[in-house]
Parts: sequence; structure tokens; C-alpha cells
Amino acid sequence: MSSPESSSEKVRVAIVGASGYTGGELCRLLLGHPRVALTVAMARRAAGPRLDEVFPHLRGLLTLPVEAFDADAVATRADVAFAALPHGESAPVVAALRARGVITLDLSADFRLHDAASWVAWYGSAEHPHHPAAELLASAVYGVPELHRAALRGAGLVAVPGCYPTASILAIAPLLAAGLVSPDGLVIDAKSGASGAGRTPGLATHLPEAAEGVRPYKVGGTHRHTAEIEQELALAAGRATADVAVTFTPHLLPMTRGILSCVYAAPTDPSRPSAAYREALGAAYAGEPFIDVLSEGALPDTSHVRGSNRVHVQAIYDRRARRVLAIAALDNLVKGASGQAVQCLNAVKGWPETLGLGAAPMFP
Amino acid sequence: MSSPESSSEKVRVAIVGASGYTGGELCRLLLGHPRVALTVAMARRAAGPRLDEVFPHLRGLLTLPVEAFDADAVATRADVAFAALPHGESAPVVAALRARGVITLDLSADFRLHDAASWVAWYGSAEHPHHPAAELLASAVYGVPELHRAALRGAGLVAVPGCYPTASILAIAPLLAAGLVSPDGLVIDAKSGASGAGRTPGLATHLPEAAEGVRPYKVGGTHRHTAEIEQELALAAGRATADVAVTFTPHLLPMTRGILSCVYAAPTDPSRPSAAYREALGAAYAGEPFIDVLSEGALPDTSHVRGSNRVHVQAIYDRRARRVLAIAALDNLVKGASGQAVQCLNAVKGWPETLGLGAAPMFP
Amino acid sequence: MSSPESSSEKVRVAIVGASGYTGGELCRLLLGHPRVALTVAMARRAAGPRLDEVFPHLRGLLTLPVEAFDADAVATRADVAFAALPHGESAPVVAALRARGVITLDLSADFRLHDAASWVAWYGSAEHPHHPAAELLASAVYGVPELHRAALRGAGLVAVPGCYPTASILAIAPLLAAGLVSPDGLVIDAKSGASGAGRTPGLATHLPEAAEGVRPYKVGGTHRHTAEIEQELALAAGRATADVAVTFTPHLLPMTRGILSCVYAAPTDPSRPSAAYREALGAAYAGEPFIDVLSEGALPDTSHVRGSNRVHVQAIYDRRARRVLAIAALDNLVKGASGQAVQCLNAVKGWPETLGLGAAPMFP
Amino acid sequence: MSSPESSSEKVRVAIVGASGYTGGELCRLLLGHPRVALTVAMARRAAGPRLDEVFPHLRGLLTLPVEAFDADAVATRADVAFAALPHGESAPVVAALRARGVITLDLSADFRLHDAASWVAWYGSAEHPHHPAAELLASAVYGVPELHRAALRGAGLVAVPGCYPTASILAIAPLLAAGLVSPDGLVIDAKSGASGAGRTPGLATHLPEAAEGVRPYKVGGTHRHTAEIEQELALAAGRATADVAVTFTPHLLPMTRGILSCVYAAPTDPSRPSAAYREALGAAYAGEPFIDVLSEGALPDTSHVRGSNRVHVQAIYDRRARRVLAIAALDNLVKGASGQAVQCLNAVKGWPETLGLGAAPMFP
Repeated sequence: MSSPESSSEKVRVAIVGASGYTGGELCRLLLGHPRVALTVAMARRAAGPRLDEVFPHLRGLLTLPVEAFDADAVATRADVAFAALPHGESAPVVAALRARGVITLDLSADFRLHDAASWVAWYGSAEHPHHPAAELLASAVYGVPELHRAALRGAGLVAVPGCYPTASILAIAPLLAAGLVSPDGLVIDAKSGASGAGRTPGLATHLPEAAEGVRPYKVGGTHRHTAEIEQELALAAGRATADVAVTFTPHLLPMTRGILSCVYAAPTDPSRPSAAYREALGAAYAGEPFIDVLSEGALPDTSHVRGSNRVHVQAIYDRRARRVLAIAALDNLVKGASGQAVQCLNAVKGWPETLGLGAAPMFP
Repeated sequence: MSSPESSSEKVRVAIVGASGYTGGELCRLLLGHPRVALTVAMARRAAGPRLDEVFPHLRGLLTLPVEAFDADAVATRADVAFAALPHGESAPVVAALRARGVITLDLSADFRLHDAASWVAWYGSAEHPHHPAAELLASAVYGVPELHRAALRGAGLVAVPGCYPTASILAIAPLLAAGLVSPDGLVIDAKSGASGAGRTPGLATHLPEAAEGVRPYKVGGTHRHTAEIEQELALAAGRATADVAVTFTPHLLPMTRGILSCVYAAPTDPSRPSAAYREALGAAYAGEPFIDVLSEGALPDTSHVRGSNRVHVQAIYDRRARRVLAIAALDNLVKGASGQAVQCLNAVKGWPETLGLGAAPMFP
Repeated sequence: MSSPESSSEKVRVAIVGASGYTGGELCRLLLGHPRVALTVAMARRAAGPRLDEVFPHLRGLLTLPVEAFDADAVATRADVAFAALPHGESAPVVAALRARGVITLDLSADFRLHDAASWVAWYGSAEHPHHPAAELLASAVYGVPELHRAALRGAGLVAVPGCYPTASILAIAPLLAAGLVSPDGLVIDAKSGASGAGRTPGLATHLPEAAEGVRPYKVGGTHRHTAEIEQELALAAGRATADVAVTFTPHLLPMTRGILSCVYAAPTDPSRPSAAYREALGAAYAGEPFIDVLSEGALPDTSHVRGSNRVHVQAIYDRRARRVLAIAALDNLVKGASGQAVQCLNAVKGWPETLGLGAAPMFP
Repeated sequence: MSSPESSSEKVRVAIVGASGYTGGELCRLLLGHPRVALTVAMARRAAGPRLDEVFPHLRGLLTLPVEAFDADAVATRADVAFAALPHGESAPVVAALRARGVITLDLSADFRLHDAASWVAWYGSAEHPHHPAAELLASAVYGVPELHRAALRGAGLVAVPGCYPTASILAIAPLLAAGLVSPDGLVIDAKSGASGAGRTPGLATHLPEAAEGVRPYKVGGTHRHTAEIEQELALAAGRATADVAVTFTPHLLPMTRGILSCVYAAPTDPSRPSAAYREALGAAYAGEPFIDVLSEGALPDTSHVRGSNRVHVQAIYDRRARRVLAIAALDNLVKGASGQAVQCLNAVKGWPETLGLGAAPMFP
């Protein structure tokens, strides 16, 4: 007769794509989750080394081998899988896992857009002229628990959002939903740490070229996260996705972790006091375990949420220029990726959403 | 009969406020200027130590003592003075220098706004309920040579702009002047290195709290640089200053030097091609020695101008969202402060503007 | 009949000196400790604000007020106290707590040296010509559980070591104890992140002056940590403290967390193979939950232990130059301060030493 | 009748290996050199793009094409060549240039060791079992002007030292030469910024993995710079190279530029006062334009020499532990590479050594 904490009763979890930063962060978080056991670590290629060789910080903590992907092996040895693979490559993996009944939390962009044509428009390529698993789109839940909690409960496939979308949506969606700002003419100026670019070295993240400067990239409506931001903001505003177009400018900053998103919006009533916007955030996020609406005068700082699943949000009205500014700060690898994925698993299972995610931010 | 390069014929220069970063940067730049000799270094208080004790990087290069401010001594021993003092404290120093006929380049905000009432509105305090030297405002030239070159020639008082305004104005003024974008609803999202906060230590720039995060500050129309930005953009657009209100959001980034300013504007003709905006920048800055309009597809990066007086600018049209994005990157201590001050001196004297400013950026 | 996990049975803990980095880090770690409840937060002065105002990263997690120190209040409301105060100021606080029977873990240097005369030699001042509580020295246990586990069990006063000593001692003590290296002529070259300098801003840790450079400080046998390093290494080597003199050079690095200590020693037998040194570390630390002796060829990196109580160690023999190099990397705020303090509490109580300290390092 | 400054009379300079950091830094420095004209830029492969495309910071300053290496073209269009290529690849290029009479300053390691057998021992490989141009070794001058000024005058081939050797040699050579310290048992603990690793991206310099940590590498006598350090220190000490073996430990730091080298040595007379060591440095470097022996109590900081050819040195005697510590800080890309190469050219030509190198360090 086993005790409630016995390992045999824990949910068995696989990570597919264990050698990237979101895979490594899943390891860190799941090690502290009381209801799961990490049983499988896989990567697309190069089976062999152990997790603590791929990630030296896991030395002494995780010695699982990193195997080549095998859907049957996952289905045999795990109940739940996190897929942390590039877009396009993730969809067939997810399809294989779903076909075997594995609850799947996908951290790629492959199932975030409800519309297959949108996926093709933003992610299609000669290699992928069609969505690789369009038949699954209808069942995928966009994994922001604060917005889609009910749909997550019991879901089989969760499309965990990107880091920029999570920050941008959490900052402005409540103001759109409350009708306080217009969905027309939104400007999103977002800043990211270099870990958002992944673990593959390149000149853009080569320390000497990145450590002491800032630059925008993929400006002018070309960054793919634009699509899911528009989808979710349109939903919040009660519009069709095609009727919302945002200007989104991502920046690479000389730091490792953190996303700060500033969303500029036109107020629907220019005479409304600044407090109304902050209060609307407070009302929307009352009871949310991870979202802190800051006090009047306080402003989000990514340093204050680093390493945690927490989000600091604030809204201010610039009366002179008649512009509302909504700001969110989060850790791109936690609430912007792996932490949110764990939160989604908790929501799928009906567990307290803070399981495995209770750690305070690391400061300084 | 002395040669043209003889030291005795060099213009003698004083720095008042030599112990802050802009003072130190003036030292660095003036050491390489062939037509000036640094003869006086003063600070508001604490005379005594030598420059190379205040700034160890000047060891072996500059051994001037740092004296307490004395207007007569400046007038006796220098022809030109750079004032690098806080606002409010600078105006009486400048007035004393001007009264003695010293050509003065003021790096504070005290003479940037043409209207004394605006100064009171943005900078006034119990200590300074009125502008301390309003009678000089009419003679002060706003020191962006690219915009006010003719007025600088022979000027006695130059108000050297702030770092945020220089970047923001250079990015968008040509598009306003050409009628390509509207002066209504401008959004300026700007990012700065920590040296912009000055040399006085504080928790906001304490390395452990600043090195790995990003945060906005003085949002919602409260940052004082907003006033001079609006003054100059209104001028470019042919409007009264009171008729232009911009949303300006400064951010503190985990780096030492650099300003990146992103200006979002509405196009006056949504069907205009993206190239038109870049070409307008190119036309405006043709022949400018310090401003590089980047090639199509290239984006400004503060790393590429660090340590130099150069500015990298670009403009892009986001057709989906009908928004123009104009971007400028510069070094806040050079083109954003001390380098621009030296460029202004060159313009005042009718010298080539590149004198003392020819050094290439330091990369990486 | 309450369950084992009931809050009423948790050990009640006070933090005295809650507004510095080690205080903040204690909060972070104790929030995740299953057997303690943080009931009191005090600082030397300025009672009033809440913990989450002093440390914005604790927002939503800890709302205790920060009270002025009151020994009676601590004794009434807590069973255990962590003192995170400067040396000299800590001793009277600790004495007051011990007099009231409060188990005290002192993070200052006041009880680390067994000899009161040594304390005076290294820490004495006009204000403190004598040790403020010399009568307690005999009962204080030097808090490195790996070396003094037995003495910690049931102790009433623990002197938690400094960050540099922890790293340096853990690197070389086993080699001294095994007689593999000589205690004569040891050179310790150590590198620290800026959080080791504390939370008080100053020019040395002002981001513009610290972010892109490295410098040694307090060289030539003047850093106070030298004393406790010599005490413990002499103990390991079986010598009198006075018979061991090390050269210790600390450096300030442009990063927030982390200590890397390189200890150079002369081998007692130049013909011994390199593996012997690594194996001696392995034997000494077999079964230790926090210490990882790296594989041959791997070298410690502070990035791989950040945020955790873990230590990565390695030893190499440079046969050409006949010198042994022992290296340790740890997080100065965790294993170098607050984490080690929590580990000591666990050791005092006889709990598993990993309680509250099981979290994996945060990487990247 | 041309004026002395006419371009036609400038020495024509080629850079072979123009696309790496030392190549880029040569461009920056030579742009400010009054006696040279940069006429040729070549790289091993991939001719085509212009210099300002390879290095965006050169935009507006240098538009030379980057050609594939061609020794005849260099000889036709240049008088002097800087070779900034990897070891092994440099030697044949240098040989081809020397055969055509081009004065060559080689920044690789190929001509630094006087003994071909040493080169094979440290740099040999299956591809290079022998030195590729051993016949040139005798004519190569080791390019530290402070030590080998006379030999540099008129030299045809200069082997510009590495960054670690320059810092280490300049710190301790005068103390060895003066007989103040023993050449036995030297320990060199050196710290470098990431630009020292070159421009090729890799995980070790990927910002997320390098920005917040420190690690040693190539420890235990395996770093190739050990050989040239020993050669030059033996020379200073009046010993055979084979009779000096140093322990050299390099570290990678989270910064872009800078080398700090700490050299630990045994005093030949333990009773000698600390000032004697500093004074010996002062005597050795009197009149040197780039070397500053710091005042008593001051310590070198790489931030204070960044971007310049300057070196800050200091020596301290730790009487307690009977150990001398000599410290040097320099910019690895300037005095540690390209700046020293330019200084060597000045020395070869008999020009003032400060030509092109007069710029003050960039601080902050």
C-alpha cells in the first residue's frame, strides 16, 4: 500500500527537445515539482550524453540519458510530454505523441495560431507549404492560464505561447476586454534578454558584440510573434483577428533573461483618470497567483521576477499625450516558456497552479 | 613668427564641472583636438585633487588641478568654457561667464527651452521658482549642428541638448519636416545605458541591481527631456510647441553607454513605400559627417557607434499596421553630450566639425 | 493531534538584518523550507516598510513588516535567529539573543575566529578595541558542515563563514588534510561578483565603472577573510594557526553573483599523478549533498552553480611547474552566505541538510 | 612640391586577416595614424564585402573591399603588412610577404618563439609537424618595445606578442631583471575579456552562458602562451628558457575587453620593503609613454585603460606571506594586440611610438 508521495503514483513526464534552454529550464522546474517524475529526456538527434553533460548545472541532480526521439518509447514510459522543439519540427512530433494518447504541452509556435492559413502565412516555407498537422489545431488550447483556464482543464494539447506574446498580452488584454483602450493603432515595443535567442551560438549573441549594446530586430511587422499577439488581442477586444494589426518591435538587450513589453494604446475616453487603467488590471488579475499589479508609482523591472513564474504589470495614462502605457515584465524562460508550460500542466490536471512554481525570484 | 599649430595660438578651453562623466568625456575628446588647449578644470566644490585622480583613466595624460569655480579665473585663462553642471546650478555659472565674454557651451538643460515659462513648468522648484538667467535665453542656440548650423556660427551661448532628445530628434525630424509623418500621436520609446544617470552612485545603478535587468522610469510624460523634444519636433513640423505632445518612455539598460530611440509615427499617406522614409533621411543628412543612414535592411545598434560622435539612423514603414518607425543609435556621452558640445564649438568657430571627433567607434 | 506538516509545529525563524542581500537571500530560501516559518524580520534601524517594499522581488510572497531590533521580541516570537549584520554590530545582537536562549546563526565575522586577540588584530577599531562578546567565542562553531558537522549538531551559536573562505577552504582543505600539498606558500587568487560588496551603493559597484572591467582590491594580506582562511587551513593541515600564512588576492568582477577561488599549492611529492589530487577531493566529499568533484578535464564555472547551494571543485597538477591548483566555484550569496546558514540550521537541528536547499542552479 | 602631410608620402599599409577583431582594431587605430594610409585589406577566404560590411562600426569611415590574400598584390600596393591570422596559417603568408620585401608585423604566434622545436612542441600538429617557416625565426623580433626597442628599429619581421604574455611580462620582468624576485615558482593568474577568444561564435562566448560567470580554462600548463612568457621571463632573469617554468592560469571573464595579470613571486630578500618593488617598476618604465606605474595604494583596473595602448602596473609585497605580487592591466585588443603592433611599426620606422596611439582610454 503506497503512500501518497510514492514515486509510482507521480505523473511521468517526458521532455522532447531537452538540450535547449527551454528544455533545461523544464528540468530545473520539474525537479521541484511534487507531483511529477521526469522519466524521459529526448532530443531530435545525437542520443548519448547524459543531461548533466549537456547542462553542467544539473550535475548531481539529473543523470537521465538524452535519447533520440521515439514516440512509442515516450508513450510507454511517460504520461505527459513537453515538446521544446523549433516550429515545423514540432508538429509531427506532437502528432505522433497525441496519436498515442500522450498529453502534450508544445512550446513551439506550431499550434498557437487557430487558423492553418495564418500558420502558412507566417511560418510556411518550401519545406512546409502546409501546416504539418492541421487536424490538431482545433483541439489545441492557447496556454495562458489567466485567459484560458477553463479550456485548459483536461486538454490533451496545449500550445504554450511565446515569451513576447505572453508579456504583451498580459499587459494589455484586460484593458481591451474592459473597453478602456482601442484595439486600433497598438504599438508594442518589447525588450528581451539573449536567452530568448536560444542556445545556438551566433554573432548576434557573441558576447563581445552583444554585451554592451542594444538593437532592434525583425521590425516593421516581420516578427512571427505578431500573429499570435494579434489573435489573442482581437479575442480580448471582441474583434476578428484580421481586424487587429499591431506594430511590434522586438529588441535584443545585453542581459541573459527577461522580457519587458511596453504597449502603447489610445484610450477610448481621454478624460478617464490614470488609476482606472491600473484598477482594471487589478480587477482582471485578482486572485491570480503569479501576476502582481504594482502599486501606483512602481514600475516593472525584469530583475524583480527573474528565475520565477511571476509577472509584474502596471498601466499609466499619459494625459498630455493622450496615450495609455501598459507594461509587463517577466522571465522569458519561465513565465515566457517553461514555467508557463508547467503552469499549463497544472491547469490541465486541475492541480494548484503553483505546484513546482512557488520559488521566489532570484534577486539580485 | 609662430607656425599655425603653435600651442600659443590654440583656443584656451575651460571645463566647469570636470568631475562628472560628461566632464571626463570632454577631457578625453579635447585631448585629441588640434585647435584647443585645455587650460582650466573646475568643479562646483572640493577643489584640490588633480584630474587624473578624479579620473584614473587620465593618468599620464592630464594633470590639471580641479579648482573651485571662479568666473574671473576662467575669463583670464580661457576663451571658451564648457559647463557640465546640473540644471539650475548651471544658469548662474553661465551668466557669470557670458558677462565676462567667455564663449560658453552649456551641457545642462538651463538654456535648451526658448520659453522661460516652459523652464519653470519642467524644471522650476521652490529653490528656483524663476529661470535663473532668463535674459540669456534669446541668445542661446540649441546645439544640434545638423539642424541649427547657421545659428551656431559665431554664437556666444550654446545649449547642448540632452542624449534622449538628440537621438529622438535626429531620427524623426526630417520625416516631419518633409511632411511624411504626422506630428500628432508620436510615441518615443528610448533605451539608455547607465552612464546617462551620471556618476553619483545609487541603488538604481548599483551593479547587482542593474546588471541583469531592464526597467522603464519617469513614464507618462514626466521625463523633462520631453519638453525639448517637443520644442524641436514642433519646429521641424512647422507647428507651435504647444501643439505637439509626444509620449516619451525612457528605459535604463544593463550597459554603460548608448542610446537607442525608436520613434513611432503615423504616415501622412499610408500608401507611400517604405523606401521613401529612408530616402528622406538620406536627403536630409547628405554630407553630414557624423550621421549614417543605414542601408535597407540594416538596423541601428548602439555597439556600432560606441565611443564616437556618430549616429546610425534608419526608417521603416510597417504597412500592415500603418506605422512608420524611425530609429537612431548614438553614444550618450559623445553625440549625446560631450562630443556634440565639441562639434558645436567647431561650428561656432567655423572649423571643420570633425576636429577632435574623427575617431572611429570602439568595437567590440 | 496535528499532522507533521502543520504550521504550528514549524520552527519559528527571525532574520535580524533583513534589508541587505544576505537577508533577502535568506527570505528567498526560507520561503521554500518545509520545516520553518519566517515570523520576524528586523533591521538595525528604520522600522516600518514591509519586506516586499525593501525587496520588490518578494512582492506577493512576503509581507512581514521590517521592525527595529528588539531581542525580547525575537525571543518571544522565534526559536531561531539569523543575524545578517556588519561585524562589530553583530556581536552585541548575538549576545542578547543567546542570553535569551535563541539559537543563533551569525553571518558576520564576529564569531568566526576562535581567538579574541585575532579578532582585535583584524577587526578591532577605536570603537571596538576589544571583542564585544569574547565570552561566546568558545561556544561558536565555524559553520562549514562539510568540515564541522558533528560540532554543529545541537549548537547554539554558529559562525557562518564568509564567501571567499568557504570557496577557498573547500578547494584545498582536503588536500592539506591528506598531506598531499604543503601548507607553506599557499597562494589564493579569488574572484567575486559585485553582490559580495553588499547593497550599499558606491563608486566601486556603480554600473558604469564596474560593468566592463576587473580589478583586485585589498591585496597583500590586508583582506580580513585571510584570518579565517588561515585558521581553517591550519586546522586541516594539523598546524597552529600562526604557522600558516597565505597570500590572498580578492578581485571584483563585472557580474552579480559568484565566487571562483584558485588555490596554488606545492605538492609534497612532485612525482604524484594529477589524478591523485582529484581523487582526494572525491574521497573527502563522497556523500556530500552539495559538493560536486568534477570529472577529469572539466573546470568549475560560477554560472553552473548560480542560485544554488552547490559547489563545483576540481584539482589539477601542473607537472611542468610543480604546482597543484585546486579550484572551487560557488554562489557567494548561497553557499557563500545564506544557503550555508540554512544548511547549518539543518545540521544544528539534525534535519536533512538539503531541506530548503534542493533547488537546481539557475542556468543560463 | 608636396607638403610633408601629403597622402602620397604616407607609408602604405596592408592588413591581412582584416575580418577578425585584431584586424578591425588595426583599422580603428590606423585611421588615426598620421603617417600611414591603409591601402589593402585582405582575408584568407571570401573576398567581396567591404570593410564596413564586415564591421558596421566602420560605416562612413572605411570602404575598402576585403580581398582574398595575394602576396604580389600586397607587395605592389603596400610597404608594410600586418598579419592577423591564426597560428600555422600565418607563417606561409608572412614568408611570402617577406620574400617580397614587405615589412611584416605578425600578430600570430608563429614567430614569437625563437626556437623552432618549441614551436613544434606547443603548436605543432599533424598538419604542421614542422615550423612552416623556420628560416625566418632568427630575424623575428619579439614585439614588446619596452624590452626590445633597439632590435625593433629597422626590423623586417616583428612577432607581436599575445595579450596574456604582454601583461604578464610587463608586470614582472623588471623585478626579475633587477634580481628582486626569483624566477622559480612563479604563479600567473590572469583574467581576460571575451574578445580575446576571437570573433568566431561558440558556446563559451555565447552571451547567456558567459555573461554572468567566470571560469578558468586551459589550466595546468596547457595554454600555449606559457611558452613565450617563459622565454621572455628567462631572458629578463638571465636564465635559459628551459630553466624557467611558470604556472599560468587564464580565466574568461564576463566582459568584452581587458586583461588583468597577477604574478606571484618569491622575493630574493624577504626583508626588503614593499616600496622597493614599485620603485623598480618605476625605474624600468621611466619615460615609457604607455606604461604607468601607479601610486602607492592604487591598483590596476582594466576599466582605466580600455580602448587605449596604456598599461597600468603595480607591485606589492605581502610581508606576512613573503610573496611579491606584480599586477598589470591592459586592453587585450590594443596593447595586447593591435595597438602594440602599431607601436612596433612606429619603433621599426623610428617614429615617435605614440603616433596613432595617443587617444585616451574610454571611461566609463
